[in-house]
Amino acid sequence: METKILYGKEVAEAVKEGLKPRIAKCVEKGIHPGLVVVLVGEDPASQVYVRNKTRACESLGIYSETLRLPAETTQKELNELVDQLNVDDRFHGILVQMPLPKHLNDIEIIERISPRKDVDGFHPMNVGRLVQGQNALLPCTPAGVMEMLIYYNIKTKGKHVVIVGRSNIVGKPMLNLMYQKSEYANATVTICHTGTRNMKEYTLRADILIVATGVPEMIKAGMVKEGAVVIDVGVNRVNDKTKKKGYRLVGDVAFDEVKEHCSAITPVPGGVGLMTIAMLMKNTVQAAEDHINLKNDGKK
Amino acid sequence: METKILYGKEVAEAVKEGLKPRIAKCVEKGIHPGLVVVLVGEDPASQVYVRNKTRACESLGIYSETLRLPAETTQKELNELVDQLNVDDRFHGILVQMPLPKHLNDIEIIERISPRKDVDGFHPMNVGRLVQGQNALLPCTPAGVMEMLIYYNIKTKGKHVVIVGRSNIVGKPMLNLMYQKSEYANATVTICHTGTRNMKEYTLRADILIVATGVPEMIKAGMVKEGAVVIDVGVNRVNDKTKKKGYRLVGDVAFDEVKEHCSAITPVPGGVGLMTIAMLMKNTVQAAEDHINLKNDGKK
Repeated sequence: METKILYGKEVAEAVKEGLKPRIAKCVEKGIHPGLVVVLVGEDPASQVYVRNKTRACESLGIYSETLRLPAETTQKELNELVDQLNVDDRFHGILVQMPLPKHLNDIEIIERISPRKDVDGFHPMNVGRLVQGQNALLPCTPAGVMEMLIYYNIKTKGKHVVIVGRSNIVGKPMLNLMYQKSEYANATVTICHTGTRNMKEYTLRADILIVATGVPEMIKAGMVKEGAVVIDVGVNRVNDKTKKKGYRLVGDVAFDEVKEHCSAITPVPGGVGLMTIAMLMKNTVQAAEDHINLKNDGKK
Repeated sequence: METKILYGKEVAEAVKEGLKPRIAKCVEKGIHPGLVVVLVGEDPASQVYVRNKTRACESLGIYSETLRLPAETTQKELNELVDQLNVDDRFHGILVQMPLPKHLNDIEIIERISPRKDVDGFHPMNVGRLVQGQNALLPCTPAGVMEMLIYYNIKTKGKHVVIVGRSNIVGKPMLNLMYQKSEYANATVTICHTGTRNMKEYTLRADILIVATGVPEMIKAGMVKEGAVVIDVGVNRVNDKTKKKGYRLVGDVAFDEVKEHCSAITPVPGGVGLMTIAMLMKNTVQAAEDHINLKNDGKK
């Protein structure tokens, strides 16, 4: 059987298509979904991410603004800005681009954003609600993985999902999404990390293997069960003199060799990475809808 | 080798002993740690639990009050009471005894309690912080399991911990505690539940098996690896005419047969169950200490 390549682009497009009527409905009700992106300092990678995010907004007709602050911005200044944005009705989503300059406390900022506007899904309130199976704004990358599995009709129910990596951004929320008692989850889940002994013993048992470690091509063919589904969340630059830029992008999975053994796999680039911004758009629309519902509840 | 029986009583005593100097220090600073327990309705089991909790407070010199509300209490009344207690400086911990009568929304109440006073550790804010590896008030039963493992010098680092059960109260927080990158966690963790196929395949691989399902004696000898550590969080009543009360208490593990195969096991009763109230006391003292620190920070 041929290995199915799971491309992110078509799933991301489908997600964005699904948002268009929802955005139109918000506008009809007099609310234009809005996202504000806060960028502190001049990190070049962050500049690119921020540009991509605001472009995605434009293409969907989501109102967006980017606030660029100098690298010397103080905690107090950033806190006050967040406080203002929390009550600014133009914006239903607030995204403070990480990483922040080192003198700023990222946890303090994340917790200061209103959980209702936390479109990154990083606020403990949203994390806790996710864990408890309540409605929450979900972190974009793991939510994007869920969308991809649904789109490609890969069932998780009763499967053994093994997650490699325990970051706050991917591994932990991925874990907590996957065991939930819901139609599109309900998997038995194992989480592995740098403290895991004999990693291979675990990865070899995965029906669905999800890798988010930041270690280039660490998952080799011998670590994957024949016929497994492999989701590679990693995006790593490795030096490559044959490329114009001097590097190429690889995932956390050794794609070429693993591909031969699995039933489906996400490529890097072109896989999960493309989902993140689409899910950010979805969260922004979700936050705008929740805002409308809350206002209407208030009127009752 | 003989199987070690892990009794909860001596660990709970050790935890409470450890609290005495901390309580004395709070009192020295003019703050008497206080717990308020809110009991709605007449559930007989809840009455017993509440009595045990306030007795534990008395024995340690923690100030406590029990507020008994009629079963007909409205959501609005209960909300308003919680609001008052949130700003009542006599109480550093607020415990609303669950389950609430069916007309009341327990999630609304849990989220209304100030996360700082949430000594049950059920507020999403505390759950989210736990997941993210930040300081949090931890749910009492899983925190009690961690204490027992530390007390009996059972290392979790690099071990395979398998958790059976995905309740908000035990299974989920237990999972999220166990994989954290810390000296007393750092395990590879698998979570199983009612959606798991071939449960035995997973439980047989556990170095440490933690069971919290509410299904009497579901874990049989054939499901446990030789030499494993077995932690039984279940407390179930089964009919037994030979007993005065007409029932006896059993765990989720078939103790007599599993005991023969494992290196250590918690009994029911007498095991994990005894830890919960001790951990509630610990959370109350913790909340009082945090209150003092916060006040002092404010003075700076």
